Amino acid sequence: MNRNLDENIKNIIDSIKKSKNVFLASHINPDGDNLGSMLGLAIAIKNIGKNVFVLKSDIIPNDFTFLPGIDLIKEYDDNLGNIDLFITLDCSDKERLGDNKKLIENSNRVANIDHHLSNTNFGDINIVDPAASATAEIVYYIIKDMEIELTQDIALNLYTAINTDTGSFKYDNVTSKTHRIVADLLDTGFDKNLVNINLYESMSFTRMKLFIKSLTTLETFNNSKIAVIMVTQDMLKETGATLEDAEGIVSFIKKLSTVEGACLLKEIEKNNIKISLRTKKYLDASEICGKFDGGGHKRAAGCTIYKTIEESKKMIVQSIYEAMQV
Amino acid sequence: MNRNLDENIKNIIDSIKKSKNVFLASHINPDGDNLGSMLGLAIAIKNIGKNVFVLKSDIIPNDFTFLPGIDLIKEYDDNLGNIDLFITLDCSDKERLGDNKKLIENSNRVANIDHHLSNTNFGDINIVDPAASATAEIVYYIIKDMEIELTQDIALNLYTAINTDTGSFKYDNVTSKTHRIVADLLDTGFDKNLVNINLYESMSFTRMKLFIKSLTTLETFNNSKIAVIMVTQDMLKETGATLEDAEGIVSFIKKLSTVEGACLLKEIEKNNIKISLRTKKYLDASEICGKFDGGGHKRAAGCTIYKTIEESKKMIVQSIYEAMQV
Repeated sequence: MNRNLDENIKNIIDSIKKSKNVFLASHINPDGDNLGSMLGLAIAIKNIGKNVFVLKSDIIPNDFTFLPGIDLIKEYDDNLGNIDLFITLDCSDKERLGDNKKLIENSNRVANIDHHLSNTNFGDINIVDPAASATAEIVYYIIKDMEIELTQDIALNLYTAINTDTGSFKYDNVTSKTHRIVADLLDTGFDKNLVNINLYESMSFTRMKLFIKSLTTLETFNNSKIAVIMVTQDMLKETGATLEDAEGIVSFIKKLSTVEGACLLKEIEKNNIKISLRTKKYLDASEICGKFDGGGHKRAAGCTIYKTIEESKKMIVQSIYEAMQV
Repeated sequence: MNRNLDENIKNIIDSIKKSKNVFLASHINPDGDNLGSMLGLAIAIKNIGKNVFVLKSDIIPNDFTFLPGIDLIKEYDDNLGNIDLFITLDCSDKERLGDNKKLIENSNRVANIDHHLSNTNFGDINIVDPAASATAEIVYYIIKDMEIELTQDIALNLYTAINTDTGSFKYDNVTSKTHRIVADLLDTGFDKNLVNINLYESMSFTRMKLFIKSLTTLETFNNSKIAVIMVTQDMLKETGATLEDAEGIVSFIKKLSTVEGACLLKEIEKNNIKISLRTKKYLDASEICGKFDGGGHKRAAGCTIYKTIEESKKMIVQSIYEAMQV
């Protein structure tokens, strides 16, 4: 970490020590990193005797109910007391906080801990490290520098956070630092297998059914460099699944050796098709989705096309094809 | 590592230093750990000026042709010279060496490096550490203790080995040591993404087709605690796939949250059904397969039933069901 980050870590530690009531929140549509980094830090601060309030920003997916401290998460209430310090985790901007955004105005101090390059530095203290694979990496350094004991509960949360934000240590963002942190976490002796079963072997039956059904729609184009798959309203009815159950399907078809662009079309309704695009080595997914007023990252982006699913498919395939000709 | 292992590592280092011609071989049905640990060690020993011969034990799967040094692998030939030292990697017993087994008699010294508990200690020097997640972990310590520079080519091979033998750092066998070794490997700066694309995003189209087709046969029993899937000769004909392409399917259905026992039935021929069983938390897979004269590990085992695929399915499901009643 650079010197500026070190300085800001000192500032947040100082702030935590001075505070009686510490509030923590993360973003809407919770994932492993926001829940894990938030709960890991919350338990650590609680363990040094502070009043800790972990605020609910959204419904918590069933996948994460195994996390220690998950029952600490509560809706905000005006009677909870003075907000000496409000720590936001994994939130690139205020809007991502959902309803808890309003607390920023009511807090004595706001500390913004995140690893998104796009972070707007909205806090009084900003600890933003885009080189971190997950916000949990930064939380690890804070806990270590504060000399708070790394308990199994804290370690399990941080491990879950890093594991999910790196696709089990596969993604670009993983560094040697990531693995060294994980080694320290494992040294606490928490049950790593419990985490891996919960994260990777807890698929619901309806989701599996949707997965199988959508896979049968697999089509490829341009010498199998483009792979397309669909999830229709009919499939959801047949399987009893929801659109959220489509998570992971597009990554699966990207496994094909020939594929550079993998695309999932989700039928929200008849003329409203949500598209997820993943690219492997060279195609800029955000540029392609940008043509349909969408956006995202270089290797993962999305957009919506207001046509039927068949028309939308033709349009997105044509756009990917054109991007491949450059 | 315990003192005995340290002692044996000293012995092998001493042997390597004294040898002019070093031969290396690994097991038949090559996987990421045997190829990666063998090539990593071969490159290291070559880099200190020894004559190194990497022997082919079997056909090398296409998945691994990206490994640096893969072209070093050659068939054994009587004209290659005196075998001062023969190093076997990841081989639990001599038989696993295939045709290269015969070289054991012709070698001045045999060093047996492995992480299988079942290793028969057939070498003059035996470095067997069942606590290592992969044979590559042991190779890492040998290279480090010999003070051979850890190059990118060596690191990429050892990383591939550890990655494949741990299911991308998910399995039981992963320890904090594993992650610390991987951190050191990543510090060399090799292209980790290349490895991950080659390992996890290089599925052939025929394999994907077989995967999809077999998934449509998914059946569950005993409140979805048992999941069964089939690969028939008809499916192979329709998709153009081979039985090897069925790799990974059984792990996929084990992802179902309710599943304790996941079972794949492969039709070798009409009355010859090969069964792969995976269990999640408590069932002893090797015990169940043992009833059909098969075997394996607690969580992964196999057997063959000489009945039709439908009859075999009934028999294995019944056995799993009975094991669940205990």
